[in-house]
Amino acid sequence: MPVKIRTMKSSDKDEIMAILRSTPAFVAEDVAIAEEVIDAYLGDPRESGYHFYVAEDEGHVVAYISYGATPLTRGTWDIYWLATAPNQRGKGIGSTLLKFAEADIKNGGGRMVLIETAANPTYELARRLYQTHGYEIISTVPDFYDPGDAKLTFRKYL
Amino acid sequence: MPVKIRTMKSSDKDEIMAILRSTPAFVAEDVAIAEEVIDAYLGDPRESGYHFYVAEDEGHVVAYISYGATPLTRGTWDIYWLATAPNQRGKGIGSTLLKFAEADIKNGGGRMVLIETAANPTYELARRLYQTHGYEIISTVPDFYDPGDAKLTFRKYL
Repeated sequence: MPVKIRTMKSSDKDEIMAILRSTPAFVAEDVAIAEEVIDAYLGDPRESGYHFYVAEDEGHVVAYISYGATPLTRGTWDIYWLATAPNQRGKGIGSTLLKFAEADIKNGGGRMVLIETAANPTYELARRLYQTHGYEIISTVPDFYDPGDAKLTFRKYL
Repeated sequence: MPVKIRTMKSSDKDEIMAILRSTPAFVAEDVAIAEEVIDAYLGDPRESGYHFYVAEDEGHVVAYISYGATPLTRGTWDIYWLATAPNQRGKGIGSTLLKFAEADIKNGGGRMVLIETAANPTYELARRLYQTHGYEIISTVPDFYDPGDAKLTFRKYL
């Protein structure tokens, strides 16, 4: 049975927070900012400018993705968050959500997708996922997150 | 008489909006986003995370700068907006505000400043200002704002 993709609703928040907290790559500040964004979306989805979709399996949220049109641009979109529950990895759920998001962005008039991520080893799997899906690193900002920890920007033209 | 630099207050908003609207580089959407950020700051300066300073000359606001610590980083700061009234240019007011901001950021624990700007000709003066002050272009995202209009990121270590 493939997972079901649907928009996020308020009752998903606890399961999403559990996914974020159990993801080793996310430190406390990452989780806090992810929660702020989730709350902004749940408070007023349209006004927030964010798009949130979850992957549901047997009645549980197993992954989610969030993205939005990049302010001040014409047709550039950012994928902000993509997280899969640690015990659900390796099943292609992240790929399924990423492909869903790309199709939705293209449908909404997007021509280019950007994903920012850290160069440190905890994001190795994420970087591999983006490269598998045709994303290229087009920008590196050394020492961005911390001295020695660069920010990478991945890009894909749709 | 040098200009006076002080924090922005609510009564400055009209003059700042006039500066933004009279700056050819800013399109309507830029002005709308600048206003949102100003309102967020005036509503709750501390909670907004933004720092706003104006340059005052003979009782009028002639320029302003806005900056803040970059979320999820340790010691990286972004300068978001720097605008001088068109009839006040060439007097070094932008330089004065930029140097003020750098000193304030360093004082607040910042180690690196980033400024994002467009590659299109309307931002030529801004780019020259940053380069004069020791900023280097460390990242270019082609087609970011529009097909053919790249985003440049300027960096300076403090």
